[in-house]
Amino acid sequence: MRMFLISALLGCGLCLGQSADDCKPSSLNIPGAPYPCVYPDRRVAFRVAAPDAQKVQVRLGGPHEMTKGPDGLWTVTIPPQVVGFHYYTIVVDGAVVADPAARTFFGGGWDNSAIEVPEPDVDYYSAEDVPHGEVRQRWYFSKVTEKWRRCFVYTPPEYDANPANRYPVLYLLHGWGENEQGWTSQGHVEFIMDNLIAAKKSKPMIIVMDNLNAVKPGEDASLYAARSIIARRSMADVPPPPGTRPAPGAARVGFPANWGETFTQMMFADLIPMVERTYRVLPGRENRAMAGLSMGGAQTFKTALNNLDIFAYLGGFSGSCGGRDATFDPKTSCDGAFADPAEFNKKVKVLFLGIGSVEGPGTKNFSDALAKAGIHNVYFESPGTAHEWLTWRRCLNDFAPRLFQTSTGSGS
Amino acid sequence: MRMFLISALLGCGLCLGQSADDCKPSSLNIPGAPYPCVYPDRRVAFRVAAPDAQKVQVRLGGPHEMTKGPDGLWTVTIPPQVVGFHYYTIVVDGAVVADPAARTFFGGGWDNSAIEVPEPDVDYYSAEDVPHGEVRQRWYFSKVTEKWRRCFVYTPPEYDANPANRYPVLYLLHGWGENEQGWTSQGHVEFIMDNLIAAKKSKPMIIVMDNLNAVKPGEDASLYAARSIIARRSMADVPPPPGTRPAPGAARVGFPANWGETFTQMMFADLIPMVERTYRVLPGRENRAMAGLSMGGAQTFKTALNNLDIFAYLGGFSGSCGGRDATFDPKTSCDGAFADPAEFNKKVKVLFLGIGSVEGPGTKNFSDALAKAGIHNVYFESPGTAHEWLTWRRCLNDFAPRLFQTSTGSGS
Repeated sequence: MRMFLISALLGCGLCLGQSADDCKPSSLNIPGAPYPCVYPDRRVAFRVAAPDAQKVQVRLGGPHEMTKGPDGLWTVTIPPQVVGFHYYTIVVDGAVVADPAARTFFGGGWDNSAIEVPEPDVDYYSAEDVPHGEVRQRWYFSKVTEKWRRCFVYTPPEYDANPANRYPVLYLLHGWGENEQGWTSQGHVEFIMDNLIAAKKSKPMIIVMDNLNAVKPGEDASLYAARSIIARRSMADVPPPPGTRPAPGAARVGFPANWGETFTQMMFADLIPMVERTYRVLPGRENRAMAGLSMGGAQTFKTALNNLDIFAYLGGFSGSCGGRDATFDPKTSCDGAFADPAEFNKKVKVLFLGIGSVEGPGTKNFSDALAKAGIHNVYFESPGTAHEWLTWRRCLNDFAPRLFQTSTGSGS
Repeated sequence: MRMFLISALLGCGLCLGQSADDCKPSSLNIPGAPYPCVYPDRRVAFRVAAPDAQKVQVRLGGPHEMTKGPDGLWTVTIPPQVVGFHYYTIVVDGAVVADPAARTFFGGGWDNSAIEVPEPDVDYYSAEDVPHGEVRQRWYFSKVTEKWRRCFVYTPPEYDANPANRYPVLYLLHGWGENEQGWTSQGHVEFIMDNLIAAKKSKPMIIVMDNLNAVKPGEDASLYAARSIIARRSMADVPPPPGTRPAPGAARVGFPANWGETFTQMMFADLIPMVERTYRVLPGRENRAMAGLSMGGAQTFKTALNNLDIFAYLGGFSGSCGGRDATFDPKTSCDGAFADPAEFNKKVKVLFLGIGSVEGPGTKNFSDALAKAGIHNVYFESPGTAHEWLTWRRCLNDFAPRLFQTSTGSGS
């Protein structure tokens, strides 16, 4: 702790002139890279080699100016960050790029860098000494999009050992600008489920993670294309896609009215049939759940609320059909899905609304409005986290144990 | 084709001022990114946004200087490239980074960018309308390294449908600076095998892809750490690791004498037992093969030549225990593994040596020297390719059909 005191007295020169022993390399660094590193007080130190550059920044939240040392290395230590998984970028003389010292993760439509500010004293998303399931890469052809698609399928630890057993299925979606790898690479879905199942907190289940990007031939793919400011700076002749803020202060471009419809069609025509043909799943709506984060939560509500004969469990993690404004009308909002509370409550076993406490009151207000209208729902708030993966890991950890508890299938 | 003529007449200004229709975005680009793109003559055009930079280069082979346009976008079209998968980097005022417009691939110890210059008229490594197997992510604990490790396991299309069948196993390694994802992300192992199995050219088999990085607690990990010049420029206080050329012209740092031994120990103590406990494998040496590319080929020969009671098939793709110089002595080289040709030929069903034709004559010379000493071996040369993934896809495509043809197991 003395290091902090000295650092505070001398500024950042000392703490960055050496790799201070108490600054631990982020778990997401490339092998052997000492930076970025995280101090016990959650300050983060970065280092970038850019010997001929005039100006180098780290962008994590706002921009943080780096300082050039005599060795051509630029350094900065930024203030304490909240725990969790944070995407960040490096800007070298105006070029917005990933930090070569960190692993990359597909988010914002490109492979950018990330750090993990560790959540203390938790092991629910770590590899523990418990039986481990698998995440399986599965290719299948979609008649709707006329393309080969890839999804990932989590199978529980016992799956291969019990070839007569069948399992319920959770369809689990990523957020905007991410892909079918997000729930494993960023979310650690496999460790969360292995640990829950080992502790007998959760039923063994299959989890299918597909890609929101689903367009028919000739359809506009820009909703799912590289839309971030980072990517578009290298794509000057690509028009700003819907749903984005093209420049600071500019109006948000609206989503097309029919967004998500092709995914829903693809899911029913191609994905679910492939899953039920390929894996040992339990049949029927009470053995199917759908959830997603952010845009994937919005897609979940779009797909499942209109198809309650298919799904009995719904989860929106920082995304649903409500919460963006206060004009919820139980009779008409969300395509009128909540117009008949008694019928809805009979059909939907769990309606889960999760959010990070830093994300604002919208989801809590939506949950309260639903409750006031007589719609049973579970509100889950992740303390101290924002619109990022730690919120969603916690959401899954709370949501999964609620699933399939009334299932009459042969899952052990 | 008129575009080429005009381009040739006017230089690159025109062909880069617009996205010429005949310049096809690389299949490895992020969704929606028009650059980098590949012309029919295999020239490649790049574009990078770096509005305030003084100097921007593409490094693919040698450096290629980019030119800044009035829009702050830097562009260059580089001469025709050989077909295949090429790692490349962008240098912005001395900062060596990945191109934000391309997907990243773990190679050289970090996540750098890559393009695919397509091989014409081939489909052996594409998703085709055939039954598809899975690539499964498998976590397991290593007693040797005292760490959780991840491997990927290819299971053939029929694996789940025939729960009584058992299959032979190929252990398949990546190269230096890559990891257990290489054979799927860069190599397309799953499509190569699906297509071979569907055509009945190859036996259905399990393929286990692990990570060469295996160190015991306290052991020097630098052999496997981020060693590339790119990464080390951000790691100035990290000593140059063995096996690298620290700076142009400097002497190559030697590998430690015991390199690879921990991997071999880990493989026999942890990996193979886990695989044989977890998957339905056929027992015995005639149902086990080992192969690898580059450093993974060297590791294969190090591990398997001394353990011919465990493996009956060996493959070195641009890497083995020979071929680096002309001093092969059948009695003593490769730890004397070839001293008794009759015994060797009886034990080893296939000894496969693959290489790209551009990589030089070393492997051919090694194959000839082995043959002269009476050691049966298969020499495979990939026409027109260098030390990169297209060579190794072709190697696997030629090697896999040779495996397990004498197997007496229940694999169909």
